[in-house]
Amino acid sequence: MRIDRTTVAEVGEHALIARIRARLTPRPWVVVGPGDDAAVVAPVRGSLDVLTTDALVEGVHFDRRFCPPEAIGHKALAVNLSDLAAMGAAPRAALLSLVLPDDFAVADLDALADGFVALADRYQVAVVGGNITRSPGPLVVDVTAVGAVGSRRILRRSGARPGDEVFVTGSVGAGAAGLQALRAAAVEAGSQPGGSNAAGVMHALPASIRAAAERYLRPEPRVRAGLMLGRNRAATACMDLSDGLADGLRQIAAESGVGMAIEGTALPIDGDVVRWFEQQCADPPIAALAGGDDYELVFTCRPAHRGRVRAVRTLVGSLPITKIGVVTKGPGMVLRIGAGERELPPGFEHFR
Amino acid sequence: MRIDRTTVAEVGEHALIARIRARLTPRPWVVVGPGDDAAVVAPVRGSLDVLTTDALVEGVHFDRRFCPPEAIGHKALAVNLSDLAAMGAAPRAALLSLVLPDDFAVADLDALADGFVALADRYQVAVVGGNITRSPGPLVVDVTAVGAVGSRRILRRSGARPGDEVFVTGSVGAGAAGLQALRAAAVEAGSQPGGSNAAGVMHALPASIRAAAERYLRPEPRVRAGLMLGRNRAATACMDLSDGLADGLRQIAAESGVGMAIEGTALPIDGDVVRWFEQQCADPPIAALAGGDDYELVFTCRPAHRGRVRAVRTLVGSLPITKIGVVTKGPGMVLRIGAGERELPPGFEHFR
Repeated sequence: MRIDRTTVAEVGEHALIARIRARLTPRPWVVVGPGDDAAVVAPVRGSLDVLTTDALVEGVHFDRRFCPPEAIGHKALAVNLSDLAAMGAAPRAALLSLVLPDDFAVADLDALADGFVALADRYQVAVVGGNITRSPGPLVVDVTAVGAVGSRRILRRSGARPGDEVFVTGSVGAGAAGLQALRAAAVEAGSQPGGSNAAGVMHALPASIRAAAERYLRPEPRVRAGLMLGRNRAATACMDLSDGLADGLRQIAAESGVGMAIEGTALPIDGDVVRWFEQQCADPPIAALAGGDDYELVFTCRPAHRGRVRAVRTLVGSLPITKIGVVTKGPGMVLRIGAGERELPPGFEHFR
Repeated sequence: MRIDRTTVAEVGEHALIARIRARLTPRPWVVVGPGDDAAVVAPVRGSLDVLTTDALVEGVHFDRRFCPPEAIGHKALAVNLSDLAAMGAAPRAALLSLVLPDDFAVADLDALADGFVALADRYQVAVVGGNITRSPGPLVVDVTAVGAVGSRRILRRSGARPGDEVFVTGSVGAGAAGLQALRAAAVEAGSQPGGSNAAGVMHALPASIRAAAERYLRPEPRVRAGLMLGRNRAATACMDLSDGLADGLRQIAAESGVGMAIEGTALPIDGDVVRWFEQQCADPPIAALAGGDDYELVFTCRPAHRGRVRAVRTLVGSLPITKIGVVTKGPGMVLRIGAGERELPPGFEHFR
């Protein structure tokens, strides 16, 4: 197979923008799409606009040795849709801002755009604009996502009250375990930094940890769960997990002025992920709490509103929703494991 | 004077976000501001949302040797407000996404935020959120701006018709001349790449070119002119100038399926800028057409609607609005200088 290594510098900005625009699906709420000075979008009548931005930076958030460009495009949008979901918002539009190294391959840009647009199409998100510019350093994929939410359905971080129950969607720890496994496999496969051998790295992974690696590479934003939590007014507070469950719990507690007591044995951790952490001599609940990249929703609920959580469960299909603890008067953040109690591990912070 | 060189890596992400948030002015249309998963903003009743994103990348769009951090913050927002103005939109909200080198000084981040927030406050733009992450390479300042426009007031690039007159706000060429002068002064002042000696460079500039350098460093978005052009329905097509007047004219012509004939002698070029270009042995109209960074608005108007342009002129105070040519059936892009005619110079394209 002949691999086309034409670079973005050889093709030029206008041609690159045309390649991305050719992939986009028109949506009826877009009045002016890409190609003008700005996009024009009709808001949802009676709803509020929800705005979020999040960037993925090469060497900080992803490693091209084991992150294929299509996964980078997927994830750049997914992390933003996850933020909208955490507000109870329906996603509507996205802007894609790319800072590209001169030697970035056009084929890789196509794949990145494919991953981005495929996820956008799955949630009927209109890609309304963006920006392409050169980078004298790393690849940066910066995305802004816009959603809509009714004023009485907004999910905030600040509403948790003592006595509320704490829930998390899906499972935790897979993002961290998947990243660890991919890093180890990349070293084993002898990939050079900068070069991409993502297929070879995936092949070198033990089969048992591939699902977790997949979760790390292509997280699924919990769009429907967030929407249903808002519509059913089931949650007193909600946020999404990007920097780990411990970080999420701490942020809700801080914004709400409460504490939390989390049951280590209640954490939903997949069996393969438990075994991976044990092989790494890590305590699975601690590793799952500290690790990032899960993009699940964590939320709190009044005990009297348990029925609302049950209703949301039936609406989100196969996605588990698990009770993991309770909100306390605080301010302590406690983790109960077996008979003992300990302080919840800290979350991840950039620059630290 | 003791200069504090504490770096962003020493202070940490949460503290940096807190420093920026402390500078922000609350606005009544912001339902949820910075600090949650996403911002929530009330749309203007009966208006459409206008969305744009534009990034400034160190080494591509600015040089820290002669661009002080406060000017970088100003310009990062200004180029986005300029895009909103070109659509006829009123600016409402902005998101600030920062990718910061580890050794970036906290004092410089403060100055960057000051420049950004000062411009936001001038136009009552709510800074509703953003993102801070590490950069293993250049400083990247990526901004998304959100505005509002009535559906009948949208200014597009595609409405120019043969016979329309072509206008430009303010003056052109100052951005390019200012950049040339700053570059030359930086070499003279012996600044090292990466280091900042912006004050010294400004001091080393000939006094006559300082106003142009100021225009390059702190462009003024033509917010009011764009709004008034939309409200008075004065323009058949409009865009803002970031990559030069020639590029802007070509883009309007391409989107509208027309040609243009531009009068070289009619171009509004400040006397100091004319003299600067002549000193550099450049033809002032050609240099002003090809140069970027002017952030004026170029627009077309039906001859029968000249009165509307006059009305806009009285509404924008001291800002000149100058007729520079006419729209033709095309497809040629003609520049008339003296008795001769020539092809309009090309615009600037990234990666070329």
